[in-house]
Parts: sequence; structure tokens; C-alpha cells
Amino acid sequence: MSSEIQADPSPVAARDLQPEMPATRWGDPAAAAPLPEATRGLVDLVFGHHDTPARTSVDLPVVALDERHLVALRALLGADHVGTEDDTRRLRTRGKSTPDLLRQRSGDLEDAPDAVLRPADHDQVVAVLDYCSTHRIAVVPFGGGTSVTGGLVADRDSGPRALAGVVSLDLGRLRRLLAVDPVSATATLEPGLRGPEAEALLAERGLMLGHYPQSFQYASIGGFAATRSSGQSSAGYGRFDAMVVGLRVATPTGDVRLGSAPANAAGPDLRQLFLGSEGTLGVITEVTVRVRPLPETTSYEGWHWPDFDTGAEAMRTLAQSDLLPTVLRLSDEAETALNLADPEAVGDTGDGAGCLMIVGYEGTAAAVTAKQQAVSAVLRAAGGTPLGAEPGESWAHGRFAAPYLRDGLLDAGVLVETLETATFWSNRDRLYTAVKEALTAELGDGTIVLCHVSHVYPTGCSLYFTVAAPGGDAEAALARWLPAKAAASTAIVATGASITHHHAVGTDHKPYLAAEIGDVGVAALRAVKGALDPAGVLNPGVLIP
Amino acid sequence: MSSEIQADPSPVAARDLQPEMPATRWGDPAAAAPLPEATRGLVDLVFGHHDTPARTSVDLPVVALDERHLVALRALLGADHVGTEDDTRRLRTRGKSTPDLLRQRSGDLEDAPDAVLRPADHDQVVAVLDYCSTHRIAVVPFGGGTSVTGGLVADRDSGPRALAGVVSLDLGRLRRLLAVDPVSATATLEPGLRGPEAEALLAERGLMLGHYPQSFQYASIGGFAATRSSGQSSAGYGRFDAMVVGLRVATPTGDVRLGSAPANAAGPDLRQLFLGSEGTLGVITEVTVRVRPLPETTSYEGWHWPDFDTGAEAMRTLAQSDLLPTVLRLSDEAETALNLADPEAVGDTGDGAGCLMIVGYEGTAAAVTAKQQAVSAVLRAAGGTPLGAEPGESWAHGRFAAPYLRDGLLDAGVLVETLETATFWSNRDRLYTAVKEALTAELGDGTIVLCHVSHVYPTGCSLYFTVAAPGGDAEAALARWLPAKAAASTAIVATGASITHHHAVGTDHKPYLAAEIGDVGVAALRAVKGALDPAGVLNPGVLIP
Repeated sequence: MSSEIQADPSPVAARDLQPEMPATRWGDPAAAAPLPEATRGLVDLVFGHHDTPARTSVDLPVVALDERHLVALRALLGADHVGTEDDTRRLRTRGKSTPDLLRQRSGDLEDAPDAVLRPADHDQVVAVLDYCSTHRIAVVPFGGGTSVTGGLVADRDSGPRALAGVVSLDLGRLRRLLAVDPVSATATLEPGLRGPEAEALLAERGLMLGHYPQSFQYASIGGFAATRSSGQSSAGYGRFDAMVVGLRVATPTGDVRLGSAPANAAGPDLRQLFLGSEGTLGVITEVTVRVRPLPETTSYEGWHWPDFDTGAEAMRTLAQSDLLPTVLRLSDEAETALNLADPEAVGDTGDGAGCLMIVGYEGTAAAVTAKQQAVSAVLRAAGGTPLGAEPGESWAHGRFAAPYLRDGLLDAGVLVETLETATFWSNRDRLYTAVKEALTAELGDGTIVLCHVSHVYPTGCSLYFTVAAPGGDAEAALARWLPAKAAASTAIVATGASITHHHAVGTDHKPYLAAEIGDVGVAALRAVKGALDPAGVLNPGVLIP
Repeated sequence: MSSEIQADPSPVAARDLQPEMPATRWGDPAAAAPLPEATRGLVDLVFGHHDTPARTSVDLPVVALDERHLVALRALLGADHVGTEDDTRRLRTRGKSTPDLLRQRSGDLEDAPDAVLRPADHDQVVAVLDYCSTHRIAVVPFGGGTSVTGGLVADRDSGPRALAGVVSLDLGRLRRLLAVDPVSATATLEPGLRGPEAEALLAERGLMLGHYPQSFQYASIGGFAATRSSGQSSAGYGRFDAMVVGLRVATPTGDVRLGSAPANAAGPDLRQLFLGSEGTLGVITEVTVRVRPLPETTSYEGWHWPDFDTGAEAMRTLAQSDLLPTVLRLSDEAETALNLADPEAVGDTGDGAGCLMIVGYEGTAAAVTAKQQAVSAVLRAAGGTPLGAEPGESWAHGRFAAPYLRDGLLDAGVLVETLETATFWSNRDRLYTAVKEALTAELGDGTIVLCHVSHVYPTGCSLYFTVAAPGGDAEAALARWLPAKAAASTAIVATGASITHHHAVGTDHKPYLAAEIGDVGVAALRAVKGALDPAGVLNPGVLIP
């Protein structure tokens, strides 16, 4: 055995695999499609129909940043990499939550950054932070732009003194595979790599990361780390934060490399302080992750359960037996009936009874077979009925499609959004009921609330809710959603669950964080923020109450 | 499924399972034994023999704490729970590293606390912290007293202003099992519970924690958390920090409960800030951990490897295949020859060739059989030869015995100590060689350096070294050891490895921490410390540079 680390000076750059997302919609414009006929019929029936076209031309606020700063920043990065054009600013305004899309659709661009900076590498990030800290310019790190919790909305009035302006720090040019260590099974990635770009670079070496959140096609490595993302294969491959063994972080007071070993006892694990810090403590410029060999084989299948409780108990048994497949997801009765996992099948209500579980296996052929046998035995004993490969393949086919469906529903005047939480197993049912009741009570008759268990642990699980209700135009839908979200968040906090399992805090969950981490927790975060970002320019107003 | 949490108001208190350790030695005095004849012969041969009896009567420094403080503290806790007697203070002076024992043996009690406080519960801990913070009295949390890195040595001159004195905060009365949640598979334990006490309370409910560091018989739950302990079954059950899902921490500025879910995206994971904080940020008063059913069966076996590299590569293969037994440990050639795993067999050099691996399985009979088959196939393919149950059972029999052997060797004038580190797999061999060379170069001819891989991860492993060299009396042995430890630590830092995998930082590793976490990491720790412990009374001088 010898060190086989392949590192600089010839890191491998990613190719572009995705076109830019439009400001008002999700994803690749070429992949957008009108609602399937069946869905459209259902929508008309349940919600009534209202076409709500987005406004296509709206005015941006004037650039508040003084020209001398733009001149200085152009000198640092090159003129091509400091953008103040309307389109550039519009595309870096907020993220992709339903409220974000509704605000874009209604022409509200109040949160647009003054400029978009595109540094080439770590050193340019350091230079930008140095300049912006000195001159009190807010810096909003931008990876894939897929935040659904208001993580890209800087507060111009935050911090000890007024800010001179807001820049979006677009990390899209930092997208190299910097090193692969096949012996240690690690890879070092730059933060601007999007999910498919990172996987493509690793796949050329027979490796993979295996992190597939629904935002996979656009979300970035840096964003995964900064928000503690969790993917659809988390049962087998773990949360993103659990894959991370090393970080490099640039802060206004210096940069730091963390991760001397997979785990250690050298004080608090500071990686876990920067993971989830959402750009408020520093900018992550390198992420070292555990990688795995590409799977020889994959197998996704469906299981039927008589009810949500029985299926969830089976998941608990698997997790507490340390016997987890790669993918494990259980829809409740309502979600099973609507089968949102396959948007083309929306409206196909199936037999209307019971719950669908998706169980996926990836790995060597031998490992998949062995795991499939062991897991299947537990599921049968727990009351599950195998449905074969079709539901699994259907899920896999549509696994990244839901955000496109949302655009179609928003077009049709339906308010649709998701939210998620996590708790311990003994609190699962109480949390499930509390959130459903809160949403239904706030949004009234005609509201549809769907749920699935999206991630499991030995001691608990996450619950992922999808809500649909009559919306109307963008302003009306937004006005209906905000109190519903507040009601759901309040219910989550009241049951002692977490305000977010994998969507992060941003600005949307910030009012609920203190209830979860206490005044002492807030004081700790503020203290670190004050030490590393004394001017308060890093994503001000996000995360930290 | 319903909530079945069994909680207050009738928590179950632990019984005493261990007598107090003597100040100058490890463990139960009744379990101490003279060196076996074979070992004694070997020691005479290799090191020469010097009887070095400990000094039995030494003077303690006068109590520096003003009587008015003692009166006030007695009012808070009851007079019986504020001890200033010589024996009480002696037994709370430092921990159980070889330097600690040598200092006790040489009569150096300079670091004795002024008083030993024994609060009854969380509220009394809060009251003590409030009083001591107001009056600038240093507080050294004391769990099992098994620190081997100087974690119990408060610096009276540390902090922004001079301290009024030092108290040892003995958590031994906080030893209740507060709650069991069988659905979530969690238990909430008080910090003063020692390993066997916690396991006995859980075993009455058919449960276990499964954390067995070598200090298991004396170390405490709070100490496991505060130092990021890792046990001999970490391959199967994980590090202690990975078992923790919740914490309650008392700080001078308030107390905090953390752990709303197994994992989440609600900002930085602040549990990971208090885990490993070694009493410098707060006092951990409750720990909620994942528990498991007691294993139906256990099976420990030995495997022979032609050399250390081949055995270590097999461990890497297992870890990267996510196919780990419960116990996995590989001795290098020197350790295999001396077989320190079974102290009664020291001197039995075996065939003098190759390396011994201990592989243990625990669980249901079916799971053990399945795992044993799968692991054995990998080990055979990698070049291992099964040795059957005898070496495994021998290891299990002696697994907590090494500290007793150390006392016997120190009595015989042999300097013996351990140290440990962790790194990524590709750096293992370089680290191994660097530490061995540093120790040998510093301690000279006649030095024996043994090593084993004690814990494995997909991306790396820890290396645990045992050193023996001619020592002489306590003062001479200490003078020989300190530069050797410094040389080993410098070598560890130079290879980019971690200064500690599971022994924590304390005062001994503090000079090397900044090299590992950088100035930014140090600034983050200092900032949290300043916010939560503004008077600087919590374990001053420990951990934070």
C-alpha cells in the first residue's frame, strides 16, 4: 500500500451538464412540459383552474453598490466575472422555494443582489471576502441556487452597521475534482460542482458519491455541505454531512482546513460547525468526501403496506437491525393514492388502499442479492407485500421530476409546496398528525396533504410533506402559503421535532431555530460568527437568529 | 406504535460496582497483582530491575479557596458534599496517564484541587457553576478520573483574571438512568454513571450501550461524551460520539438541551460542539444515547497475518465494503510477539512471526453466523489464516487488564505508556513509521514500541502505540517520557494525522491542537468559550490553546 493521492497541479474540470434555470421555474427549460392531461383533469376537478402566467418583464432595483467597489471587484476577478446586468441579477435572486417562485412570478425582485461575482478559485474567494469585509459588502454564497428556505436572501439592514450593498458570490467556476485518494476512498471536490458534474468526474474513475437529493441536477457540492443535504439514497449511503471527511473554508479572518482523520477526539468536531453554516461563517471552497465504487447493479422495487404505521414500523425494524437497503421511502395513504413519485401517473389513484414503499438496492451483484433477501424477509414478516420492480423503476424514472410538476401546477393556479421535519420514532405519529392538522386547519377545505418517510435512522426518521391547495395568482398563493407554513412550523416546534431535516434554516426557518437549540445554542453561533466574520458580511440575516 | 418513554419521576439509580481507585495506581486494589513470573524475568532481562515503591505519605498544598466560599458551597450542596480532606483532594488530583501516576508516586500533588464538590443533580451543578463563575473559582468536571491527557489539571493562572481557587466537580452522584425509550431505542443517562453501572442498568431492561474502552470499569458516561471516547467494539457499535443523539449541558450562562432528532439540517450540529469539549464549555448533565438489545451470542476469534500491512489492508477492505464485525483489532509484529492483549502471557513470544488480529461478533445467532461467514471470506481472500476461538477468548478475558500490568511494570522501574492517533488509510504506513522512529530515537536502545490498529473507518484508521523503556524511579521515568511524548506528537503533526483519536486533548495535547484545527478553528473555540464561560472558570488551561 502506498499513497496514491492524485492531486494538483492538474485537477480535472467539470463540463457543463445543465443549462441555466429560468428565474421563475425549476430546471432545464427543455425538460419542462405542460401538465399531463390526467393531472390537468384532476386539478380542474379538485381546485378549479386558473391560468396564472408569470410576468416576463419586471424592473430590478437600482444597483446600490457604489461604482468604486465594482471597479475594485473587477480588478480582483476580471471584468467578465463581475456582473450587474438585469438578467444576471434576476437569475441570482432568491432560490427555488414556492414563495421564491411566486415572488419572481409576481415581479418582486426586491432581494436582487447588486452584483454577481464569479471567482475562479479559492484565492479569489479569499480576496473577495477580504474586500467585502473591509468595505462592509454583504456576500451571499451561491452554489446551485436551489435553496428552498430563503438561504439566498441577504438582509441589507442586518449586522452592527449598515451594509454598502449585497453581492452574490457565484461559485460556479470552482468546479474541479482536485484530488482522488483511491486507497482512502476519498475525493476532494470544489464547491461549485453540481451533482451530475461531480458524479460524472468520479464515474470516469469508477467511483461515485451517491448523493441524490431531489435537487440533484442543479444543487452543488458546496451547497450540499453548507445545508446538510440528505439524498434519496441516504439509507445506504448516508447524509451528505456524514460523507464529508474534510473541508477547506475561507473566512474574512483567514482560511482553515479541517479533517485530519475520519474521526478523532481532538476537541469539538469543527467540521460539524461549518457543515450546516449556510454561508454565515465562511465560504466552503473544498470538500473531501468518502467515495464508493460504482455499483455493479441496481434494483428498485415496490412493497405494499396495509397502512402507514405498519410500513413505518417495518422501517424502524430495519434501521434498528442495521439492515438498510440503499433507498427506503414510504408514502402515506394519500401520497400513495396520488402517486406523486411519478408525475405522469398523477391522477392514477390505484386501488385507493394502503401505502407504497420504495426499496432500492445498489452494489455488487452478490451484495445486492444478499441484502435483498435479508431485507425482504424482514418486510414480509412485518406485513409487507412485494409488488415487484415496476413501482421501483417508475419511482427511479421520475425521481427528479417533482419540481417540474410543481411549475405546471403553479401555472394552473394550484398552490403546491413541500416541507420536512425529523424526530425520534416514538414521536413520529404525533408529529405526522400535528403537521397535517396544522396545514389543513390553515388552508381549509380542499387542501391535500401528502407525506412520506424520506430518511431513516436507528433512533428516528424524517417526514416529508407535500401540500396542494387552491392558490390563485402568485400574490394570492403567497398570501395563502405563508400562514400555512407558519402553522406547520409552529406545530413542528411544539412536538419537539426539528424544524428541518435536510432543507436547512435559511431565513424561512430562522424564527424557529432558537426554540430548537436554545439561547445557549444561539449564543454559541453568534459568538463564532462574531469571531470569524466580525464585519457581519457573510449571508447576513440567514440562519443565525 | 405509541410513545413508551419511561422518564422521571422515578429514575433508576445505579449501584456501586467499583471501589475507589488509589491515587497512585489503576483500578480495584483487590485486582492488582504482582507481575507474573515470566514477565518479571523478561523485564529483568530487557530493562534490568529496579524496585520503585511509591511514596505513601505526602503533603498537599494548603487549600487556597477562602473559607467564605467553602461555607457558601456547603450551603448549596450540604456539608457532606464539599470535601477538603487530604485523601479526598489526593484522589481527585490529575488522572491516570503514566505521567500522572509518576507524579503521584513522586509525591507531587501541586495540582490538587482546593475542594471536591459532589452535586446531587443538574440543578446543583447549575448552582455551583453560577457561584463559581460569579466568584471566579475554577471548576474541573470529574467523572471517572481516567483522563490520560491531563484533562483534570486546571491552570490556576489561566483566564482573564486570577482565579480564587480550584474545585473538582465530582459528578459521581449524578448516576441515574433517567429514561428509556424502547421505540426509539434510546436511553438517557446521567454523566456520573461508570461504564459497568450504565450497562447494568440497561441490561435489566434487555438493553446495552456497547461502549467498552479500556477504561470501561471506571470511566463515566459524561467523560465518554466530553472526550469523544471510542471503545473496543467501535467497529460494530461506533464511537461514543456517534451513539449520542441528545445532550443536556449546564453552562455559566444557562443550560441547553440539544438533540431534536437523530440528524437534521437545523444549522451546525451543536451536539458536536459540546462532544469533545472536555468541560471547557459546560458540564454535560444528561446524555441520550442509542441503545441496542443485549446480544444473544458473542464470538471472538483470532486470525494470523503474514505481516502488519497485509492485515491492515484486509481491515481496509472490510471497512470500505461496509462489512465490519463488532470487534476488529490488529497487532503489529512486535505487539503480537509480546501479546500484551493477555498480560499473563507476556513473555510468550509465540512463533515470532506475523501478526495477530482479533475479530469479534455480537448479536443474534443468525446475524453473527451470517456476518462471520461474510467477513471470514474476505479475510481468507486477503491472506489471513483463522486461529480459532482461543486467541479471541484470551483477548476478551484480558481486555481491561493492561492498566494493572502497567502498575506492575512501573513498580519494577519500567517506563510504560500508550499513545494513539488516527489518519486516512493512504497515510497509515507513513504515520506508523514516523511515530515508531520518533519514540525510538528519543528513548534510545532498549526501547520497545508496540502498535495495533484499534479502530477502523471506511476512509482511515487509528494507530495505538504502547511504549516500554528503562525508566528508573518516578522522577527519572517522567523526565525520560516527556521528551519522547513530545517527539511522537511532533511526528504525528508532521504527517498530518490527528493528535488524538480517542484520548482527547487535555493539557498534554494542547500544544499540538492549533496545528490541526488552524488559527480559525482556535478562534472559533475561544469565541464559544468566551460566550458561554465569560469568567473563564470551566476547566481553564485544558483543550483550548
